[in-house]
Amino acid sequence: MKKILLVVLTVCVVLPLRAQKVMGFTASNAAKQLDWEKQFDAGLKASNQDAYMRFLTSHPHHVGSPQGKANAEYMADLFRQWGYDVRIAEYQVLFPTPKLLQLEIAGNKNYKPKLREQVLAADKTSGQLAEQLPPYNAYSADGDVTAELVFVNRGVPADYEELARRGVEVKGKIVIAKYGGSWRGIKPKVAAEHGATGCIIYSDPADDGYAIGDAYPEGGYRPGDGVQRGSVMDMPVYPGDPLTPDRGATRDAQRLDRSEAPTIMKIPVLPISWEDALPLLQSLKGEVVPAGWRGALPITYHTGPSNVKVHLKLAFNWDIKPLYNVIATLPGADYPDEWVIAGNHHDGWVNGAADPVSGMVAEMETARVIGELVKKGFKPKRTLVFCAWDGEEPALLGSTEWTEDHQAELSRKAVAYINTDGNGRGIVNAGGSHIFEPFFNEIIEQVTDPETGVSLKERKYAQTVVNADKTARAKLLGNKYMKLGALGAGSDWGGFLQHLGIASLNMGFGGESEGDQYHSIYDSYDHFTRFIDPGFTYGVTLSKTTGRTLLRLADADVLPVDFTSFYKTVSEYVTEIKTQLEKTRTETEEETKMRKEQLFELARDPKKTYQAPEAKEPVPFLNWGSLENALMSLKNASEEFQQLYEKAVRLPAGGQVSLNAILYKAERSLLQPDGLPRRSWYRHQVYAPGFYTGYGVKTLPGIREAVEQRYWKEAQENIERMAATLQAYTNQVKAAAVLLK
Amino acid sequence: MKKILLVVLTVCVVLPLRAQKVMGFTASNAAKQLDWEKQFDAGLKASNQDAYMRFLTSHPHHVGSPQGKANAEYMADLFRQWGYDVRIAEYQVLFPTPKLLQLEIAGNKNYKPKLREQVLAADKTSGQLAEQLPPYNAYSADGDVTAELVFVNRGVPADYEELARRGVEVKGKIVIAKYGGSWRGIKPKVAAEHGATGCIIYSDPADDGYAIGDAYPEGGYRPGDGVQRGSVMDMPVYPGDPLTPDRGATRDAQRLDRSEAPTIMKIPVLPISWEDALPLLQSLKGEVVPAGWRGALPITYHTGPSNVKVHLKLAFNWDIKPLYNVIATLPGADYPDEWVIAGNHHDGWVNGAADPVSGMVAEMETARVIGELVKKGFKPKRTLVFCAWDGEEPALLGSTEWTEDHQAELSRKAVAYINTDGNGRGIVNAGGSHIFEPFFNEIIEQVTDPETGVSLKERKYAQTVVNADKTARAKLLGNKYMKLGALGAGSDWGGFLQHLGIASLNMGFGGESEGDQYHSIYDSYDHFTRFIDPGFTYGVTLSKTTGRTLLRLADADVLPVDFTSFYKTVSEYVTEIKTQLEKTRTETEEETKMRKEQLFELARDPKKTYQAPEAKEPVPFLNWGSLENALMSLKNASEEFQQLYEKAVRLPAGGQVSLNAILYKAERSLLQPDGLPRRSWYRHQVYAPGFYTGYGVKTLPGIREAVEQRYWKEAQENIERMAATLQAYTNQVKAAAVLLK
Repeated sequence: MKKILLVVLTVCVVLPLRAQKVMGFTASNAAKQLDWEKQFDAGLKASNQDAYMRFLTSHPHHVGSPQGKANAEYMADLFRQWGYDVRIAEYQVLFPTPKLLQLEIAGNKNYKPKLREQVLAADKTSGQLAEQLPPYNAYSADGDVTAELVFVNRGVPADYEELARRGVEVKGKIVIAKYGGSWRGIKPKVAAEHGATGCIIYSDPADDGYAIGDAYPEGGYRPGDGVQRGSVMDMPVYPGDPLTPDRGATRDAQRLDRSEAPTIMKIPVLPISWEDALPLLQSLKGEVVPAGWRGALPITYHTGPSNVKVHLKLAFNWDIKPLYNVIATLPGADYPDEWVIAGNHHDGWVNGAADPVSGMVAEMETARVIGELVKKGFKPKRTLVFCAWDGEEPALLGSTEWTEDHQAELSRKAVAYINTDGNGRGIVNAGGSHIFEPFFNEIIEQVTDPETGVSLKERKYAQTVVNADKTARAKLLGNKYMKLGALGAGSDWGGFLQHLGIASLNMGFGGESEGDQYHSIYDSYDHFTRFIDPGFTYGVTLSKTTGRTLLRLADADVLPVDFTSFYKTVSEYVTEIKTQLEKTRTETEEETKMRKEQLFELARDPKKTYQAPEAKEPVPFLNWGSLENALMSLKNASEEFQQLYEKAVRLPAGGQVSLNAILYKAERSLLQPDGLPRRSWYRHQVYAPGFYTGYGVKTLPGIREAVEQRYWKEAQENIERMAATLQAYTNQVKAAAVLLK
Repeated sequence: MKKILLVVLTVCVVLPLRAQKVMGFTASNAAKQLDWEKQFDAGLKASNQDAYMRFLTSHPHHVGSPQGKANAEYMADLFRQWGYDVRIAEYQVLFPTPKLLQLEIAGNKNYKPKLREQVLAADKTSGQLAEQLPPYNAYSADGDVTAELVFVNRGVPADYEELARRGVEVKGKIVIAKYGGSWRGIKPKVAAEHGATGCIIYSDPADDGYAIGDAYPEGGYRPGDGVQRGSVMDMPVYPGDPLTPDRGATRDAQRLDRSEAPTIMKIPVLPISWEDALPLLQSLKGEVVPAGWRGALPITYHTGPSNVKVHLKLAFNWDIKPLYNVIATLPGADYPDEWVIAGNHHDGWVNGAADPVSGMVAEMETARVIGELVKKGFKPKRTLVFCAWDGEEPALLGSTEWTEDHQAELSRKAVAYINTDGNGRGIVNAGGSHIFEPFFNEIIEQVTDPETGVSLKERKYAQTVVNADKTARAKLLGNKYMKLGALGAGSDWGGFLQHLGIASLNMGFGGESEGDQYHSIYDSYDHFTRFIDPGFTYGVTLSKTTGRTLLRLADADVLPVDFTSFYKTVSEYVTEIKTQLEKTRTETEEETKMRKEQLFELARDPKKTYQAPEAKEPVPFLNWGSLENALMSLKNASEEFQQLYEKAVRLPAGGQVSLNAILYKAERSLLQPDGLPRRSWYRHQVYAPGFYTGYGVKTLPGIREAVEQRYWKEAQENIERMAATLQAYTNQVKAAAVLLK
């Protein structure tokens, strides 16, 4: 520990000297800002986060629940006390809840699935049975189906290819899939595409149960009866209320008929625990699954079909429910029409301590202390907006409806959107718009990790190097710069970033939490304070990190953007796709050769069914010239701008206003009004959730997904489209540079 | 199936034309040889293999058992009937059997491990309780120890490094290890090196049980009470009778006192089933194991120590037992003092159907049909020796004592040793001396795979390409040449190859057997004929493959060797070690840098114990010049010889005798009389079992293991030694070439 102390001392001594420079601030404003930040840090109290969490998690608080409304009002009251202008923005959305959930093995009365989690003495809120939503998948179809079962691993397209090669028929069957490996909504979507009539999703202990760590309540991991609730709406098409795409779901909004809403799942889907799944899995016959498909249950996993028929009957109340978004505003002293927005959702599937309250209470404490700073004389130039979203769990409902409802205003005013969600103990993670990468690096250099005393950045670097594969270490050693991830789906940035082109960041901590109870009744205050972030140590650290991000964005003389980071990242994406294309070409050629030599037939075990992969067309060469030229222009413009950027803080105020407007609106030029192929809601051309991965981001999705799907014509069209998009973006960068010349 | 038929036809039409040429034969002798081989194939009967197996597996037939002796006599009788000179070569060896096997959890009377496998109605011989050896590890120490338990994963050195990093103390504890990942004898050896007082080894279902396929008797995989017996003698030091290293264990041989025999294990060791292991694993506390250590039991695996004390008490009868090797000889017509030797062991741990009888019956049928050919006028030039070894399971006893006993004669006379052991359904596998690589490729080109109708070589190629990682396909596609593996330990070639320098091959089929019951009572006739090779289809194919190998070696005008294959292979080994050395250097430099930057301390979870790896000295640069020069000489000499090789069949008879003597004795020059560092029995400088892997081969072991162990001085010494060895070998190659000029 001696050596670590030395490092801490070094950091303490060196930081104040270095920290005089803050991106986007004049030297004197930087000094003031750092002083306010010091006071901000000092004001944050873990005990407050604890108190907020106790209230917010005291009862189940899903969409439409009494506690959900009470939580919105509780937060609204607090924000008001802290000096904010507060409104509760209400929307009316389609939110189905279970009327009947039935799962049987035909002719087997011994199979009595619980379909519920049990009450635990060690978990005080687990007994609130009457208030809990039972485990279900929101936006599943109503249905009553009886069929044999087939095991489809994660239920992604590659799994169905594997089944086809083994001659396993899915059509007319009910599929059973493991959670994980894709966003859950992909599983029934792909199942339905393959003709399955129903879908069961279960939590295998290999993924979040006893295989990973001791099960709750002895340890923190998912127990045998734990179930992951969650939405299966087809959000890669559009999130939010299925009845009001691209419109706020206000009381009098024009609505689709439910029968024509494209994002509602086409087949019935039910999530179950591994205890309930075990007898189903044991009924599967047929071949043994490929090694990578195995879970951790003490059985031989088979593909099926089962030797029994399974009866799945689901019916839902298709009600319109009210959403309560809390919107708390602190008007900017100089630029009230430039909004820096923070958001975290407040609805949970049940008591939702980790997800979402841990992030929500950090946001609240951030807002409280900023309110105190304001009372002490702090006057941020720009308007700060703190949002607590309702209905994130079912479909990012609250944030989507609000951004759709206010799209014109947000397009004009929103400078940036900073999202948080569940938070845990460990290492900083962040993703978002790459113009913010150097800015975010500056912040994590200046926030201290509470466990080791070094900066968040140093710790992230240490962990990245130590956890890296040995072959990758050489590249990582000495390179402390933290790359931002790209944002797909998974929380409330979609409306801001992907629909409206508002530059966004998402951040949080994790990696040292000891198990989670994601979307279960056990995601409780008791669980959180034992296993996720005892003492809210990282809750406070999250406040410090988001707080600095918000304060600097709100108060900077010139917005802290870096276009070269964006250029470099997009350039890497292009290289990735080209590499993927070449790999696909080679693999296709090789596979064709293997087919011609009949190697698949000769290699297979003649006692087992095995179909050679289907013949594939050769991969054409694509024209990349226009995109490469656009990248070159962007590179030149970005580098020119960044060379001039230092001068920006010395611009007269009027010049800064013009410059800042260009800087925060540049991201809008990455939108295309008609969006991505087959999903017009997603207008951003750089970041989108994968059509077949869901959470998983697809960068440059128009090109990348076309290449993956072998839509060669579409790939070429999207290369041209991307070139035009980048050209429009480059024009903004050039316009910004002109102001500095 | 239409297309496959076409391939078959093509092969049938093309083969006879191509096959006129046989390596080492004049054209006219080749035609005669191929005709004999055709008759040989036609004579082989699966039903005979079935009948032999029924007899040989009818009762347990381990060393010293009545059935073991009966089997030797049965085979001796048959070989005699088939026209062979037969002797039973008897040796007297130390072979411990259990007197007392006791395993308890101190203070827990509910824990009653079975330590036996149960009788199954579906397995007729499973009920021969009185004749079965119970599950035990031969050459375990006697012992009576009580201690806490620690889980050590596979029990190899890297696992102990991982435990040390987590602060888990092994000294004074009993370790529990999973089978697999190393030869079993390594586990107690490394445990003892780390101060453990006892060792338990269990079969995790992740490796050979329900995780892989349905358990016996429904499927072929190891059931919950299945146990793997086996030796834990320190065979990487020397195999065979521990009391008579380097000497045949004849009745009056000079013997070590048991207390000074270095290969007897120092601590008590017991193998158990997963059912017996489960309560022990559940008693382990401490940290959760690293992900790669998990098995497939429905528990959270912890490192320990346990919260209970385990009592392990083992006592053995340390008896001298007789071994019965069957040696059947067919004297060569022209060169009776040139011996081509085939061997398979006949002892099993229990009924031993797959291991070893499946290989033994193929050898027997090969011998029978060769006997028939001789009656029809076939006169192989060289002497054929068919061996059935006793005591392979405990320590390669029979083959080792015989080769030690006859080392002078074998050094003069042995042309090659062809080993087989357990055989199964599937794809050909082979390893051995690389001078035989083109020869073996010729053979597998001419033997037909019974399931697909293409050659063994085509099928091997198909499977290699299809199963390869996609990134490796490009290299493999179109390259049908089959590389021979290198031989470590695992069956009876050790005495021949590694002690005496007799060029060897080991071959068999596998990959499509449906589970095995390795070293269990369930390795029975019933299990074999259901799951391993129903109908002995691949038993007959093995006879065809080994038969051709033996017939051609016995009857060739000039021995079918290729020195360039040996050169290329050794050259690749040198490159591998150099690459490994550079990788070690880079990783050491990186780790040192990471230590200096304290990245290990900063990355770790402060709630968990984690020691940074110990400081390592920088990796020096080694001098490779002499070895590289020796390789260059070998390359030139080999290439020259191979260019002249075609002429060899046209040499006069006397010249061929001289040439053949050089060719088969060349391998002897790869021996060094004082053997490898710390294990003088292993004289071969190119192939040896790994000191810390056991089965796993280490090629160029003197250099490779020194590099792995960071014995830099020893590595350099062994580079020079290898250079000298290769130079001696090259001189033989040159001498052979001189005869052809």
